Amino acid sequence: MASRHTQPLPAPAGNIVWHQHPVTREDRERLHRHQGAVVWFTGLSGSGKSTLAGDLEKALHPLGVSTYLLDGDNVRHGLCKDLGFTDRDRRENIRRVGEVARLMVDAGLVVLTAFISPHRAERQMVRDMLPEGRFIEAFVDTPLEICEARDPKGLYKKARAGDLPHFTGIDSVYEAPEQPEIHLDGQQLVTHLTGQLLDLLRGRVIINS
Amino acid sequence: MASRHTQPLPAPAGNIVWHQHPVTREDRERLHRHQGAVVWFTGLSGSGKSTLAGDLEKALHPLGVSTYLLDGDNVRHGLCKDLGFTDRDRRENIRRVGEVARLMVDAGLVVLTAFISPHRAERQMVRDMLPEGRFIEAFVDTPLEICEARDPKGLYKKARAGDLPHFTGIDSVYEAPEQPEIHLDGQQLVTHLTGQLLDLLRGRVIINS
Repeated sequence: MASRHTQPLPAPAGNIVWHQHPVTREDRERLHRHQGAVVWFTGLSGSGKSTLAGDLEKALHPLGVSTYLLDGDNVRHGLCKDLGFTDRDRRENIRRVGEVARLMVDAGLVVLTAFISPHRAERQMVRDMLPEGRFIEAFVDTPLEICEARDPKGLYKKARAGDLPHFTGIDSVYEAPEQPEIHLDGQQLVTHLTGQLLDLLRGRVIINS
Repeated sequence: MASRHTQPLPAPAGNIVWHQHPVTREDRERLHRHQGAVVWFTGLSGSGKSTLAGDLEKALHPLGVSTYLLDGDNVRHGLCKDLGFTDRDRRENIRRVGEVARLMVDAGLVVLTAFISPHRAERQMVRDMLPEGRFIEAFVDTPLEICEARDPKGLYKKARAGDLPHFTGIDSVYEAPEQPEIHLDGQQLVTHLTGQLLDLLRGRVIINS
């Protein structure tokens, strides 16, 4: 960071020393005492993404980590409320979430996202938006029959009844990650899985405590 | 915040205690030791919005305030890269910026935005997205002739030559705020104006230091 401006706003005629010395991501990371990164949970509906993202956030908060959780609840009713569920709109939904995650990582936050995000190409698109090493793909691997038995939102029942066409796992494909940063067994205890995630974030020096 | 989960992921059959006890905005604000809010700079092209937003961020950072600056540079090439400059697209641009600001305020950040945002209705739309008292409208009031003389990006020259139709202040209206939270004289020194903004944020107890 440079010392503060003492000059007036840009004068007429050529004096366009504009936007110099902004506060950088590195400055914000020093303030927060950790790095910015996104933990991108992907998996079937009912696999446990939101539960794990929420539990990880609750574990990070007392460690002094500045976090934010993005999921359908806070995105589909706001930023993406103009989007439906066609392939094109679902892709645009993931693109916008990726762009918001990118801005928040630039702000120095640890962002947790919980979206089915079934397509490899879309997850790769988000990975490519972020600085090297700041996209942590967390595959919540829970068998379809377990997800369907949990059915926390009653969506599988609707999909089986034909009321939710293109439902991932039923009549739309889920492309499992080939090399996720972490592969979580969605039938394990939440605390165990959260512990694995914390170890990963420490191992990658995203967090220090 | 509740204590951490020790239960497994939701069991089949009705056990849908889901998303309970998230980390809240209040939790994040306690961690950051200040409130989340957006300082929404509005004014003509060349009025000084970006310079003031950048200088305010530089003043807030050493006070330990977690900030983020949103402007055309980091939004138009990412989140809003699918949008052009029709009335409809400009409105959608402001809507998305407002939604991102809302999420970042929920994350407990002090967000600084620098967009011409010429229409009262669009600024009101963003104000309505945010919790009471967390939208600080900062009107950078600089006469058109001064902005045009500065012309930091050469845009007025292009607009006068007819190469930029619907340019605010030339052939498109700028609706000045009627009751902005702060009215800044864009011909004053940057440090003076930044001081006024800091006083406002302290007076409203957004920041404490």
